[in-house]
Amino acid sequence: MSIPLAARTAGLRSSAIRDLLAVTQRPEVISLAGGLPAPDAFPLDHLRAAVDEVLRTAPLTALQYSTTEGDPDLRTWIAEQATAARGRPVDPSQVLVTHGSQQALDLVAKAVVDRGTPVGIDEPGYVGAIQALSVFEPDLCPLVVDGDGLVVEFLAERLAAGLRPRLVYTVVNFQNPTGATLSLERRRQLAELAETYGFLVVEDDPYGALRFAGDHLPSIASWSDHVVSFGTVSKLVVPGFRVGWLIAPLWLRDLLVRLKQAADLHTSSFGQAVLAAVLRAPGFLDHHLRLLVEVYGTRAAALARALDEHLASRLTFELPDGGMFLWGRLEGGVSARRLFDAAAARNVAFVPGDAFYVAEADASTLRLSYATATPERLGEAARRLADALDDVV
Amino acid sequence: MSIPLAARTAGLRSSAIRDLLAVTQRPEVISLAGGLPAPDAFPLDHLRAAVDEVLRTAPLTALQYSTTEGDPDLRTWIAEQATAARGRPVDPSQVLVTHGSQQALDLVAKAVVDRGTPVGIDEPGYVGAIQALSVFEPDLCPLVVDGDGLVVEFLAERLAAGLRPRLVYTVVNFQNPTGATLSLERRRQLAELAETYGFLVVEDDPYGALRFAGDHLPSIASWSDHVVSFGTVSKLVVPGFRVGWLIAPLWLRDLLVRLKQAADLHTSSFGQAVLAAVLRAPGFLDHHLRLLVEVYGTRAAALARALDEHLASRLTFELPDGGMFLWGRLEGGVSARRLFDAAAARNVAFVPGDAFYVAEADASTLRLSYATATPERLGEAARRLADALDDVV
Repeated sequence: MSIPLAARTAGLRSSAIRDLLAVTQRPEVISLAGGLPAPDAFPLDHLRAAVDEVLRTAPLTALQYSTTEGDPDLRTWIAEQATAARGRPVDPSQVLVTHGSQQALDLVAKAVVDRGTPVGIDEPGYVGAIQALSVFEPDLCPLVVDGDGLVVEFLAERLAAGLRPRLVYTVVNFQNPTGATLSLERRRQLAELAETYGFLVVEDDPYGALRFAGDHLPSIASWSDHVVSFGTVSKLVVPGFRVGWLIAPLWLRDLLVRLKQAADLHTSSFGQAVLAAVLRAPGFLDHHLRLLVEVYGTRAAALARALDEHLASRLTFELPDGGMFLWGRLEGGVSARRLFDAAAARNVAFVPGDAFYVAEADASTLRLSYATATPERLGEAARRLADALDDVV
Repeated sequence: MSIPLAARTAGLRSSAIRDLLAVTQRPEVISLAGGLPAPDAFPLDHLRAAVDEVLRTAPLTALQYSTTEGDPDLRTWIAEQATAARGRPVDPSQVLVTHGSQQALDLVAKAVVDRGTPVGIDEPGYVGAIQALSVFEPDLCPLVVDGDGLVVEFLAERLAAGLRPRLVYTVVNFQNPTGATLSLERRRQLAELAETYGFLVVEDDPYGALRFAGDHLPSIASWSDHVVSFGTVSKLVVPGFRVGWLIAPLWLRDLLVRLKQAADLHTSSFGQAVLAAVLRAPGFLDHHLRLLVEVYGTRAAALARALDEHLASRLTFELPDGGMFLWGRLEGGVSARRLFDAAAARNVAFVPGDAFYVAEADASTLRLSYATATPERLGEAARRLADALDDVV
């Protein structure tokens, strides 16, 4: 006899990106499709030194089971960083180390989302967040994003009209996929709305440190304890250890720890110990961030220049202030899916923008990642895209 | 305004064990309470060599994002082991690497458990499984365990009487907490019932390789594809990387991969690469398993001997054929909680058995772990337990 599946499985989206990526694996393809950080900026020597140190000084602790909350040194480091960023103290006890920031969303959704609970999310937004939330059968409410991030005025209207979300998810800096950063004024307003209407803001910030233009903006949690902040070492050091974190308000912390314990006991003790050693090494972070900002900033500028040169007036975009993505729109209503096919034939790949929408997609949009290709290859990619666009129109 | 929590959070149990463990952290305490594997049997040299190899030969792959399914070498190794154990081919594509086998249960529960779905579980059973399942608000149905594991005849009666579980969870070898192993005949019967009534069996097997007496028994999946098998390197190599796996029937595999992707994208690529290198090193596993069996077998025998000597007729127990735990029952209805308090005062700790029950607990039971203490310390622990028992009765 067959086994019935849970109702939640009916609403799961398969990742359109995942299917597309098969195309981009061919070695002759220049891929602007992935969300991978630049491997040429991985701090290999520091990682080797940290691994040696951990295996020499504390192997039995690093290889044994550990506490659910996470490595004390790593949590302290995270709390110090957050305190500086907020200008308001964050206690290490508020930090829960997660298996990548992706897991943080699984845990927060478990804590507040019932079937049918309204949940606001960036539109267009991070596909992984849509997937993580969908498991809990929310009523996903797309919230428009413009050049200043989530349009808080639009949310305010929806709230005034009766929308009662328990959760609003947004990527605050150099948003995936649009590259937009939530403005200072909107951060303050969003915090205020969260207090007034009683919802939780998830402030996801994987890219914040990768700022190559403009000034860092304060966390939304600077103004409210209705905020959970996510962070990750994936874009700061390397993704291969799957170490991220959430910073929870005190009223929510213990519940999230219990949900984490139920989900997987704790995050890899070895990975945490190694990353704590890397991140706390004197001088490492400043030096490494300068390198990352240089690498990503140079590549972003190179891609923008090449697009201007080869696709001027046929593709509009805004240069982001940081992060890994450039969001474009094809003029004349050209379909990004059609361009994708033509581009694949010319050995260049990107992600058609419709993959990032919950509701009605703008089919002319596309996401270009400049993170992994060199400036020369980015130039070549723009040339191939221009040729592919000629094939389509 | 305050934020409502999800309904599922109301049914979460806090881990009684977790609270007890605070007591056992004092250095003067001999703890038989934990579920930690023996750190003196960690293969440090092999791990150091594997880490060096990975960082030398493939650092960029091991430190980058990876596929949700897991490291191909590791999955192939797992499939080979399972094929040998089942005498029926297991394809690497059936293997999903998880963040410890704890996560495997989170994923399987997401796949088949709705609110109120009947779910059968060992009684007494693994606390972590009760916690992982509870998040999905099942109707937990305790299924009696005796010296031959889950009493399948009892389940058969419940099924005949109308119980319709979608999932039955059992630890098949050296069960936590009783140390019991599911008999061959019961494995076959359970597989048959799963087919007849249409439920999924989760066969959790963290301890199977730690067999120091008797013969290995075949997986329940030898007879049915209504079975998901869990495994872990936590007790085989080390727990600190949080690498486990599930082996799914083909009909369930893709759904579990999508749920894993939504939960945390993938398990640490670095941890998987290191463990694949360790486990596939020629001769490693045979040699290491001989060591583990020697360590745990010696300790189990030492604890049993000491209990016989100091607590004869006041504590009954059966010596398990493997694993890490010995399950005892205090004679004369003595409360294990009361003994726990007296034992803590005499600097010895264990877990009172009532922590492992879903329904009515046998308050005289207790779980003793012999995994981490030396034979000498186990002898001393038994002496202290006898003194503590004098204090109580």
